Amino acid sequence: MEVDKPVRVALLGCGVVGTQVARLLAEQADDLTARVGAPVELVGIAVRRLGLERDADLPAELFTTDAEALVAREDVDVVVEVIGGIEPARTLILRALEHGASVVTANKALLAEDGATLFAAAESARRDLYYEAAVAGAIPILRPLRESLAGDKVTRVLGIVNGTTNFILDKMDSSGAGFTEALEEAQALGYAEADPTADVEGFDAAAKAAILASLAFHTRVTAGDVYREGIAEVTASDVASAREMGSVVKLLAICSLVEGPDGPAVSARVHPAMIPLSHPLASVRGAYNAVFVESEAAGQLMFYGPGAGGAPTASAVLGDLVTVSRNRLGDVRGAGESAYADLPILQMGSTETRYHVQIDVDDKAGVLAAVAQAFAEHDVSIQTVRQEGRGDDAQLVVVSHAASDADLSATVESIRRMAFVRDVSSVMRVEGASE
Amino acid sequence: MEVDKPVRVALLGCGVVGTQVARLLAEQADDLTARVGAPVELVGIAVRRLGLERDADLPAELFTTDAEALVAREDVDVVVEVIGGIEPARTLILRALEHGASVVTANKALLAEDGATLFAAAESARRDLYYEAAVAGAIPILRPLRESLAGDKVTRVLGIVNGTTNFILDKMDSSGAGFTEALEEAQALGYAEADPTADVEGFDAAAKAAILASLAFHTRVTAGDVYREGIAEVTASDVASAREMGSVVKLLAICSLVEGPDGPAVSARVHPAMIPLSHPLASVRGAYNAVFVESEAAGQLMFYGPGAGGAPTASAVLGDLVTVSRNRLGDVRGAGESAYADLPILQMGSTETRYHVQIDVDDKAGVLAAVAQAFAEHDVSIQTVRQEGRGDDAQLVVVSHAASDADLSATVESIRRMAFVRDVSSVMRVEGASE
Ligand SMILES: NC(=O)c1ccc[n+]([C@@H]2O[C@H](COP(=O)([O-])OP(=O)(O)OC[C@H]3O[C@@H](n4cnc5c(N)ncnc54)[C@H](OP(=O)(O)O)[C@@H]3O)[C@@H](O)[C@H]2O)c1
Ligand SMILES: NC(=O)c1ccc[n+]([C@@H]2O[C@H](COP(=O)([O-])OP(=O)(O)OC[C@H]3O[C@@H](n4cnc5c(N)ncnc54)[C@H](OP(=O)(O)O)[C@@H]3O)[C@@H](O)[C@H]2O)c1
Repeated sequence: MEVDKPVRVALLGCGVVGTQVARLLAEQADDLTARVGAPVELVGIAVRRLGLERDADLPAELFTTDAEALVAREDVDVVVEVIGGIEPARTLILRALEHGASVVTANKALLAEDGATLFAAAESARRDLYYEAAVAGAIPILRPLRESLAGDKVTRVLGIVNGTTNFILDKMDSSGAGFTEALEEAQALGYAEADPTADVEGFDAAAKAAILASLAFHTRVTAGDVYREGIAEVTASDVASAREMGSVVKLLAICSLVEGPDGPAVSARVHPAMIPLSHPLASVRGAYNAVFVESEAAGQLMFYGPGAGGAPTASAVLGDLVTVSRNRLGDVRGAGESAYADLPILQMGSTETRYHVQIDVDDKAGVLAAVAQAFAEHDVSIQTVRQEGRGDDAQLVVVSHAASDADLSATVESIRRMAFVRDVSSVMRVEGASE
Repeated sequence: MEVDKPVRVALLGCGVVGTQVARLLAEQADDLTARVGAPVELVGIAVRRLGLERDADLPAELFTTDAEALVAREDVDVVVEVIGGIEPARTLILRALEHGASVVTANKALLAEDGATLFAAAESARRDLYYEAAVAGAIPILRPLRESLAGDKVTRVLGIVNGTTNFILDKMDSSGAGFTEALEEAQALGYAEADPTADVEGFDAAAKAAILASLAFHTRVTAGDVYREGIAEVTASDVASAREMGSVVKLLAICSLVEGPDGPAVSARVHPAMIPLSHPLASVRGAYNAVFVESEAAGQLMFYGPGAGGAPTASAVLGDLVTVSRNRLGDVRGAGESAYADLPILQMGSTETRYHVQIDVDDKAGVLAAVAQAFAEHDVSIQTVRQEGRGDDAQLVVVSHAASDADLSATVESIRRMAFVRDVSSVMRVEGASE
């Protein structure tokens, strides 16, 4: 490629993110030219509906509904995919690479389901595939993990990577609202979609956890490998109980390097957890995202910012676009997929976490001893227990040391069967606190 | 370079940071080989004193006192400079580039004083010069600014980039101690050096501000361009006064894109300032660092972590080393200096900030009116004023809207001369609050 020629960009999708990508390409044109070393030219935009009014002021002749033809154009250097979903996004990205274009995408769902196919295609085409916007929107987290920490050993990534659920939990915490009420408010304010399943059930966060774990541990992790629990079961009483412990409930994506039965392994999971108010993630409010990284040499790092939204996500897309364009001009590639460590993935049953268990019991002698005995029988060691009488019933709040999911479940099962137990009213994992 | 051949690294300096670089090179050897694509081999270490006991278990034959000869070796691919200071570091880096090596350095003082010479040398040698460790230790901040935000327009960078001063101010805040007492504690705990000038007077933060401003605004900014005020004048009463306002005093490095007399300009300054407790930087405790970035599309981002220490700083050095080594193997370079915007640098006298001014006055009628008149005469508009009587004297606390340093100084001058004014007991800038 000659240096004077522009870098030609095809945009697939012109919705929330795509519109902002197109706007920034126009508004920042001079700066982009200086930073890339050549003008960046938008040569086509694929959408579903041609006539639709778009926010950005874009020439009608750029639009097409024939995305296949657009990615096959000989003169396209970079394809930006912001359609989302599995198909046709996957086929379009594969075609783009085959035709010699580099690709920038924000598509977490596709990367987490079938990243391997995309990375292999990028490898054999010897082109770049960048995707910073796929995790935590505007927050630069993939590049730091992949490059800045490349000389270090990451041991744990703890992220608030879904703004919708963080907004809901934050609302429950600040107002005492229940889940349904908080969800409705989030929907009214545009923070949650009409069908909130992907967010509320943790699917979105699980896709991001898979991407984070893959990069952090140089191991292929797919969304299917990630244990997932959403926030629909979190009650106002769980949240109040967390408060009493000086904690707050967050939906966390947790990726960690653990000692498995056959040596080092990766654990990746998404679930609500209580974290102490003193933890940097505890103060992440509203729809903001943050990713907390622990590594052997660097220690504890945190990356914080807006996790979604058209303009923030477009900022991340354009950062990738500049790198990928510079690489095209220099006829080089950035680092491709790194999966050399190929660690086994630990199942949730074997993953150890701490638990907060709240039990409503009859207030009589011997109850605490019997409950403690149930924990001991299942090898779950207790860190603290608090008992509060309330007339003829009482509440026990137990916080355990690290225990396996399987052992804890068995403990709770056996406690539930005890005659004096009225209800096990809250079982929640505890993260981010020292043992 | 053949891909099977190792990447050969020369280490200049084996003190706090160098020892950890050497240790990680050995401990992470297998991972580094996988990530770089070739083994990374340490071929020599230059120090001042040969006999010295070093923390890492390093072969004696690697050591030399002849740094000049080490950087001139034909077989060295990458030189890591962790000696510090201006000379001989500058000459050694220039020699290394001339001899065809890429360079990784943690030397903020040198980069902020004479980065231009180094960048020019890297450019003409067509080699990399990377320096992530120079600002905020382990926190990946330069790479995100340079690459992730390359498609965005950064408008402001607000950083707590000196751990020593943050420790001291945090101590003053939490214990009510005065500056001298807090400094002594920092020295006793190893957070401050015996000669604390570089930290306490803001020289270290100013060097980092210069580097951040250069990257954020694509403009050459040197340490000499940065307005600088240290924390030695911060009193226990300033800190208490901040508390009363729901704020905390921090030493901030502030780099902003401002409207100058002839269009856009850069303002870079380091001084203590009050920030509201609700600001994400307010909760940065102890010796931790954090950098808060505002950009047009991404919005507000924050990067948080350990700003110093041997291992954290070495993590950043090794991240750069991996990139630079990969570039050597691929026979390519990363992006060089970007100074195309070449914006003018605004002097402090023209920079507008908000101020908190505390005035001890005789408690009599007309005092508030006279003080308010003094602000008005100098075009400094008042946001809030609080008056508190205490017997026959009173205290006025004024918070201004944004005003120039020159106008504020003139206001304070004229207030000081008023007969009923006993003392202007605190003048401090206010940052991070909405107007
Ligand atoms: N929104 C965010 O805040 C955010 C944050 C991070 C990552 N992301 C990711 O960014 C991607 C895009 O999200 P979005 O919110 O911008 O989605 P969106 O608003 O729904 O926009 C999707 C766009 O793709 C177009 N499209 C759909 N099917 C198509 C097809 N078969 N051929 C051509 N064009 C097609 C649509 O065309 P029409 O306009 O004609 O319907 C629309 O312009 C997703 O992968 C998402 O996960 C989004
Ligand atoms: N320490 C931190 O936390 C930190 C954080 C960020 C950045 N940095 C930067 O990293 C750099 C190194 O800092 P440091 O704390 O590691 O310094 P240090 O502990 O003082 O170590 C300096 C090293 O350089 C060697 N040296 C000094 N003069 C030399 C010469 N003329 N020729 C060869 N070697 C020479 C010394 O040799 P001897 O051992 O024989 O005396 C020593 O090994 C500085 O630029 C600093 O600003 C440090």
